[in-house]
Amino acid sequence: MTSIFDNPAEFADDALDGFVAANRNYVARVDGGVVRSTEMNPGQVSLVVGGGSGHYPAFAGLVGAGLAAGSACGNMFASPSAGQVYRVAKAAAMNGGVLLSYGNYAGDVLHFGQAQVRLNAEGIETRTVLVTDDIASAPIDEWEKRRGIAGDLTVFKIAGAAAEAGLNLDDVERLAIKTNYRTRSLGVAFDGCTLPGADEALFHVPAGKMALGLGIHGEPGISEHPMPTASELAELLVSRLLADKPDDAGTEVVAIVNGLGTVKYDELFLLFGKVEKLLSVAGLSVVEPECGELVTSLDMSGLSLTLLWLDEELKEYWAAPADTPAFRKGNLAPRAQRNVAEEVQAEAAEMETPTPAAAELGLHAVTAVSAIRDVVMEHEEALGNLDAIAGDGDHGIGMRRGVDAANAAAQKTATLEGGASVAAVLTAAGEAWSEKAGGTSGALWGTAFIAAATALGNRDSYSSKDAAVAVGAFADAITTLGKAEPGDKTMVDAILPFRDAFIASLDSGTSVVEALKGAAVVSQEAANATSALRPLKGRARPLAEKSLGHPDPGAISFGLIVERLGQHLDNELMESGTRA
Amino acid sequence: MTSIFDNPAEFADDALDGFVAANRNYVARVDGGVVRSTEMNPGQVSLVVGGGSGHYPAFAGLVGAGLAAGSACGNMFASPSAGQVYRVAKAAAMNGGVLLSYGNYAGDVLHFGQAQVRLNAEGIETRTVLVTDDIASAPIDEWEKRRGIAGDLTVFKIAGAAAEAGLNLDDVERLAIKTNYRTRSLGVAFDGCTLPGADEALFHVPAGKMALGLGIHGEPGISEHPMPTASELAELLVSRLLADKPDDAGTEVVAIVNGLGTVKYDELFLLFGKVEKLLSVAGLSVVEPECGELVTSLDMSGLSLTLLWLDEELKEYWAAPADTPAFRKGNLAPRAQRNVAEEVQAEAAEMETPTPAAAELGLHAVTAVSAIRDVVMEHEEALGNLDAIAGDGDHGIGMRRGVDAANAAAQKTATLEGGASVAAVLTAAGEAWSEKAGGTSGALWGTAFIAAATALGNRDSYSSKDAAVAVGAFADAITTLGKAEPGDKTMVDAILPFRDAFIASLDSGTSVVEALKGAAVVSQEAANATSALRPLKGRARPLAEKSLGHPDPGAISFGLIVERLGQHLDNELMESGTRA
Repeated sequence: MTSIFDNPAEFADDALDGFVAANRNYVARVDGGVVRSTEMNPGQVSLVVGGGSGHYPAFAGLVGAGLAAGSACGNMFASPSAGQVYRVAKAAAMNGGVLLSYGNYAGDVLHFGQAQVRLNAEGIETRTVLVTDDIASAPIDEWEKRRGIAGDLTVFKIAGAAAEAGLNLDDVERLAIKTNYRTRSLGVAFDGCTLPGADEALFHVPAGKMALGLGIHGEPGISEHPMPTASELAELLVSRLLADKPDDAGTEVVAIVNGLGTVKYDELFLLFGKVEKLLSVAGLSVVEPECGELVTSLDMSGLSLTLLWLDEELKEYWAAPADTPAFRKGNLAPRAQRNVAEEVQAEAAEMETPTPAAAELGLHAVTAVSAIRDVVMEHEEALGNLDAIAGDGDHGIGMRRGVDAANAAAQKTATLEGGASVAAVLTAAGEAWSEKAGGTSGALWGTAFIAAATALGNRDSYSSKDAAVAVGAFADAITTLGKAEPGDKTMVDAILPFRDAFIASLDSGTSVVEALKGAAVVSQEAANATSALRPLKGRARPLAEKSLGHPDPGAISFGLIVERLGQHLDNELMESGTRA
Repeated sequence: MTSIFDNPAEFADDALDGFVAANRNYVARVDGGVVRSTEMNPGQVSLVVGGGSGHYPAFAGLVGAGLAAGSACGNMFASPSAGQVYRVAKAAAMNGGVLLSYGNYAGDVLHFGQAQVRLNAEGIETRTVLVTDDIASAPIDEWEKRRGIAGDLTVFKIAGAAAEAGLNLDDVERLAIKTNYRTRSLGVAFDGCTLPGADEALFHVPAGKMALGLGIHGEPGISEHPMPTASELAELLVSRLLADKPDDAGTEVVAIVNGLGTVKYDELFLLFGKVEKLLSVAGLSVVEPECGELVTSLDMSGLSLTLLWLDEELKEYWAAPADTPAFRKGNLAPRAQRNVAEEVQAEAAEMETPTPAAAELGLHAVTAVSAIRDVVMEHEEALGNLDAIAGDGDHGIGMRRGVDAANAAAQKTATLEGGASVAAVLTAAGEAWSEKAGGTSGALWGTAFIAAATALGNRDSYSSKDAAVAVGAFADAITTLGKAEPGDKTMVDAILPFRDAFIASLDSGTSVVEALKGAAVVSQEAANATSALRPLKGRARPLAEKSLGHPDPGAISFGLIVERLGQHLDNELMESGTRA
């Protein structure tokens, strides 16, 4: 039961405010999460972690010297949005680049992935290492599909120590990958947890039973068992983890007994004592273990055992000091406080005054987004119906939500005092799109808008070459984030032909408007041609069969949008009598 | 629900073993609890804390540099025995004396008190500061009757920091007293906790209700309320604590939001945020707060708010660094490990070989204890009946349990290889008595035996003067620990006349046996004369009235025992034909 709140909808935000109030020496609040409130080394890599709230000390409690530089904090058990991740990473970034690291959950992958595209586009070199330690969530030969649980701590700790030691982004990334590869966890649950304001737990385990491998949000486990004794439980966890050990495992391990919330300290210590004896019998020595609440799930009744198989390099960084609100180790010299609020303000103030050209193009961008909104509204129902044939039918409503938010944000930005560049307008539109639309298509559209915005920037003049660059950036963002190939039956099948036709036309001297109109025709043909394709990504086979004979909804909506944009530009030109 | 154990009866011990296994860099196991595994300063005061298990990180989690030197760890929610406290304090003591500090609960007061008497008797200067922070447990004008909850942390932290800084015992004690005087806590509970192996919680709070001031073991609170919002709860706690503030309160406070077990971190932070705002509105500034699980009650659903009203001196020691398994603050240079097991062994090995005289007297002590056992067994039922008139009727069974254990321990000690001095025999008997008898009379008899043992020591020869000194030490231990005055209708009313008559007889040249027999007659008369007394200590008025016309059972049993001892010595002398 979660007992302490005013408004359940504001629980995560209120809790984060209180966390910062209680830990001002360590963390400062930024839009989207927290960053260290202490000074960092100017050239160091910034480890940015995060995920849903409700897992304290993961993730905000792990921000501090020798560990994370920042944490993006989503709602309860929900991924932070791409905008949150981006803003936290911007505030946390020094000059050494950013390593994003988080547990492997679909929502997090999507939103952190969007942020990564955007950070890279802005010249902040950003990499990602997913944590995949939970052996219950996929077999060993699919270990990269495993989800992340308490292994977050080993990966974050070693990456954070490496960053603190001044290693470069390549090395910090390499160490994080190695740590994740050598980390294994397995959890058990005795009962579920209750979200703030909910009357019922998210899930239950039958009384007197133990669920082996159940996920921390109730994801399915491996099996159900009668309640074991502590010794039996230790034996079960140790034997399963040893059976899953990495090929090059040595004889030294970090062992972490992690409580999920209501299995309390004495119980965790008791289990740790049994585990250590079993590991010793297996010829392993336990190095600097941890036993406590490190990655929780509100008041979930359960625990997990994590083993990190050390080598000399990992051992050094595991043992290195760290000083965060919830994880302290060794002896770190005190750090001076930095004034985060001032720095973030200063950076915001540095936002360039828009050039006349960029401001004018910004106004065109506003009407273009409005035109996109019109065409999405007109086809919302048809797109939903098309998606329902072999999908969940939410493509229409998702596009509508995204474009509504994008339209409002674009208008608001363009009417700011001092005006707004085309970059500012499209960035605001893209952020709003991905935050409000949800799901994969919202993430793709939002990220692509922001990529185009970044490409257009705030210049003194614009030519048709800039249009080509923007379209190229748009398409690149979609392929980078979505990881779809041509022929996978996705919007990529409409975008790449569009991009190629558009750029070829411009290269041959055609005007932007005519190039757009021509490329839109190509794109629509390509979208229709996806009818013949069998989807290869993200669809179960029965749905794939159903989809045959129908085009991909994302490709169709893209084709409709670029067609409408062509008409819209044509109208604008006729009205103004000028050429853009 | 407590889920993880093998045998519920061994839960506390198993958990402590696991705790030490997980924290070897900080703590070492000793008989009765844990002490620091790192080196301390030779002349420093040793802060020894403790109490029942199930409150982690209180108490073992607070052992480390800048905080406690040792912790005596009782069974679940049960005080450690006097022997446990004594052994932990012995292992923790350097040359600066010992400060015992713990929450004000009857069992703890009794057992720590016994240990204090024994430590002082052995020349280890020992003081006690009780923690009495819970404003719900008694009104402000009886604040010394209040029980201790999360205020343990402020008192321990400041006393520990003062000890680390090299302050002497007077100053460490003074600071602990001041900290306790300036610390106020108030807790709420939403539901009770379940002991290992139990099917039902120790207590329940009705669904949708909150109990204000309920104790951490279910002791009665102030009032019951409908579940408040977080803001309402913060308002309630802050207003009650501010209304109770000490006279010389300043404007700086440490605020501690403490979770009892299943109110989780996000909730605690959320509440802290509200509390800090209210304190700020009240003109107070919050200094280095804490928010987390600091004094728990297994899986109890509840929390408390503690305020420590700082002055400059307390602020300095609150902010000082500390490094323990569960509480780390600031920056402390790493400490070298000490080999506790070796030191404790070395000390045990140093136990003197008994002198022939002390070994012979030890054998007499064994038969004397056996004679005491006989007389207690003969009168067990009668003593029980007498106690039942105005008490709980357990005096007979309690004395029987104690003397049975004492007798077994005395015999076992005397038959150790190398023999045993009278001091070793009576110490073992006294320890066994107080550990097995339980209750106040067991504590008094056990402590008095140990005091007499310490007075007799391991000498080359014994005279009747030693008998006088031993009887004096026995009586002093009873009055020091029991704090009863003559006329309070306790065993003191039989002991002091016995002591005075015995010593006067010896002074006038009477033999030990005759002096004992004569003093026993005096003692029995004094015991019978307690019939006319009205008990003034530890009895409610209705019971006090019932007791009129009946003697005090503790006085009667003492009289019977010394009478039997006189007969026993007489018999021994007749058998051996010699004078002791």
